[in-house]
Amino acid sequence: MPHSNSLADILRQRREKLAKLIDFPAVLWSGSPSARNFAANIFPHRSSSHFLYFAGLPLQNAAIRLEAGKMQLFMDDPAASSALWHGEMPNRDRIAEQIGADEAYPIIELEFHLQGVATIAVQDAASWTQQSQLLDRWILPQRAPENIDLELAKAIVELRLTHDQAALTEIRKAVSVTVEAHKAGMAATSTAKIEAQVRAAMEAVIIAHNMTTSYNSIVTVRGEVLHNEHYGNTLQPNHLLLADVGAETSTGWAADVTRTWAVNGKMSSTQRDIYDIVLAAHDACIDKIRPGVEYEEIHLCACRVIAEGLVNLGILQGSPEELVDIDAHALFFPHGIGHLLGLDVHDMEDLGDLAGYETGRERSSRFGLGYLRLNRPLRTGMLVTIEPGFYQVPAIINNTQVRENYKTSVNWERLTDFSDVRGIRIEDDVLVTDTEAEVLTAALPTQADAVEQLTCQ
Amino acid sequence: MPHSNSLADILRQRREKLAKLIDFPAVLWSGSPSARNFAANIFPHRSSSHFLYFAGLPLQNAAIRLEAGKMQLFMDDPAASSALWHGEMPNRDRIAEQIGADEAYPIIELEFHLQGVATIAVQDAASWTQQSQLLDRWILPQRAPENIDLELAKAIVELRLTHDQAALTEIRKAVSVTVEAHKAGMAATSTAKIEAQVRAAMEAVIIAHNMTTSYNSIVTVRGEVLHNEHYGNTLQPNHLLLADVGAETSTGWAADVTRTWAVNGKMSSTQRDIYDIVLAAHDACIDKIRPGVEYEEIHLCACRVIAEGLVNLGILQGSPEELVDIDAHALFFPHGIGHLLGLDVHDMEDLGDLAGYETGRERSSRFGLGYLRLNRPLRTGMLVTIEPGFYQVPAIINNTQVRENYKTSVNWERLTDFSDVRGIRIEDDVLVTDTEAEVLTAALPTQADAVEQLTCQ
Repeated sequence: MPHSNSLADILRQRREKLAKLIDFPAVLWSGSPSARNFAANIFPHRSSSHFLYFAGLPLQNAAIRLEAGKMQLFMDDPAASSALWHGEMPNRDRIAEQIGADEAYPIIELEFHLQGVATIAVQDAASWTQQSQLLDRWILPQRAPENIDLELAKAIVELRLTHDQAALTEIRKAVSVTVEAHKAGMAATSTAKIEAQVRAAMEAVIIAHNMTTSYNSIVTVRGEVLHNEHYGNTLQPNHLLLADVGAETSTGWAADVTRTWAVNGKMSSTQRDIYDIVLAAHDACIDKIRPGVEYEEIHLCACRVIAEGLVNLGILQGSPEELVDIDAHALFFPHGIGHLLGLDVHDMEDLGDLAGYETGRERSSRFGLGYLRLNRPLRTGMLVTIEPGFYQVPAIINNTQVRENYKTSVNWERLTDFSDVRGIRIEDDVLVTDTEAEVLTAALPTQADAVEQLTCQ
Repeated sequence: MPHSNSLADILRQRREKLAKLIDFPAVLWSGSPSARNFAANIFPHRSSSHFLYFAGLPLQNAAIRLEAGKMQLFMDDPAASSALWHGEMPNRDRIAEQIGADEAYPIIELEFHLQGVATIAVQDAASWTQQSQLLDRWILPQRAPENIDLELAKAIVELRLTHDQAALTEIRKAVSVTVEAHKAGMAATSTAKIEAQVRAAMEAVIIAHNMTTSYNSIVTVRGEVLHNEHYGNTLQPNHLLLADVGAETSTGWAADVTRTWAVNGKMSSTQRDIYDIVLAAHDACIDKIRPGVEYEEIHLCACRVIAEGLVNLGILQGSPEELVDIDAHALFFPHGIGHLLGLDVHDMEDLGDLAGYETGRERSSRFGLGYLRLNRPLRTGMLVTIEPGFYQVPAIINNTQVRENYKTSVNWERLTDFSDVRGIRIEDDVLVTDTEAEVLTAALPTQADAVEQLTCQ
């Protein structure tokens, strides 16, 4: 019987693909909200991404069982009393119809449908405790999956590594709102006194579109702190402001974008010099993206362009190739060029490196490569971020041992000329197509001139 | 040795008060961030409120031990590698100095300082698991405390029931930003198309002040859904918009405010009639607030004023006193008049009714009283919300049995004249002073005319 609505169709296609990869049943839990400071004051619920991929709706306290292309939904109808507090909610049968589930049962029935099923740990403790109890084995988010759970995880990775049209439609929505948020942040900068005011302008756009942020925003004049989640610094005219902010749609699909702009709308010549190197790396990476190319090669391309640029400015000394070989670039670009993007901002990072790293590959112990989150040949339909950066991290560049180790490669004296550059990053979301790269975030300019125009509006 | 800074002074005073109430040591955990969709993508960290009360700073993975007025801090110095991702963080000794801890140790030392200590469960699973393991007894957030844990909880309730000046200073900051947020919401309504856009204007004010919301905002034209957390409805000119939005300072102190206004800036006569009844109840309650008055009396006062108003409109029939006795008011005002407010928006609700209910009292089984969260005589320094409302909840007023039970008390026909009133609530934060009530949120008008002026700006 063909399903009449498109969500049901999409989900059916996804589980039919799954059925070709595994020959055992799988149960995926939605997860439950986590309490903030008391049970009734919860963090906004976020369903498990694996659940969202196959169930399509951000349900809570629900589970789906997938076998041979069929889906069973397990969830309770809302309690009669909940109508007072939460309004009339769609019941189980209505939701089952919407998502094209073949059967629907109260959650209590789940325990009778668990023989031989594989699963993946969800993040909240109430749910992984329930998973562990019902399956009578430890299912923990911090523990690598084993046996059929591992087989299921690998099958899901295979599916989620490349995006179908339905996923891309959602991601484009998230991207569009994110682009608007960044433009609002740039426009708000001239009147903002502290970082938090720029953040407010950006997140207001996301909230107004009834979306949420896909990760905790970074909006900071101290861009050298890579995961800075403080917003209290005063904006000074000579500061660069780094904003790493992304929206997530109601069904969980994410965008992830960074721009860096001058607080006064005009970069100094030193800021512009470094900005243009980061931008050159960004452009060079995107130029290289096509199916079959190793993502590590993209990363190394960025490293070389940055090294070459810093040689030209007199900050590094030597041949760019050799500087990259000794990780001199990583003194200023200490993270990877990017990562997978999809339902998670680091897509499927809950599975460790299972998604990010091709089977048989492991993280490098090299300082300049160890933070690379993706090491696979690119495929059509993969969505990755490209996010080169330049940072003056005190913990790195003021380290005596580092300065000694790199005394011939770095002109530490020359570096002091660039003290008004604390951190720059330019990050776009790039889809691998059959022949090249499609920059989904292309509507947000990267050229310094264009960014400055938006900032001075 | 006197402490030199005021945070340390405040905290010392609090733990000296605690020392007068218990003669055994207590350890309070800060809690840890909860994962959202993968370990590195966390919900914004919220420290346990009991920890915040005595430690003053929103630390994570930390604990304090309190005994006889002394405080020991247990936390690790930031790892060297964390400087790259999170910047230079204050170390343990610096924090110990700031909060006036007498001693400071790495977290690993905690296990040697646990003999005979009481504690209170934190909300996140990693932390309550650790609490349970280290103390070798179950410490679960959903389980009522027992033995010395119960004694500790009661002592903390006794302290936190009334607020010191330092707490009030923080709460006034949260209130001030919340008032501004509501004004921004009113001003944004005329150009907003959906609820989410009004929410965005309100939360942007909170974010811009580097605060967070103290609970998930309610911004809805369906005010009859008491805990509505959807924001997708289109605003129609004849709608009332109900906004229940509050800010929380960085150290955890909360505000909690509701206003209801007309989308087109002008209430219909039926909307105004009901609004004025709710406002009359609000004003009457605040007039009654003083030390010694039973909060349940305040609640019943609201019930009577609402019943009387509805009698005057011809919706209810009979004497207001008798209507309240049979819970007829609760058909339209099915929740309590308010609750404690402090570090939690429902203060200390993590302890069940231990804080809200005087010893020996229990929740009423009456529909019109059972949702009352506070049932104690008021004391100077208590902060409560006053939040009467009127709602047409389909699950209540369309229930055949309800309509039958109240056929002589409700003029169901007359009620249909008020179909453009789905939900109205007016909520202020009210401090009990020695002689009367201080409405901390008084800067935000409640009168319909004044609200309409702000909405039409």
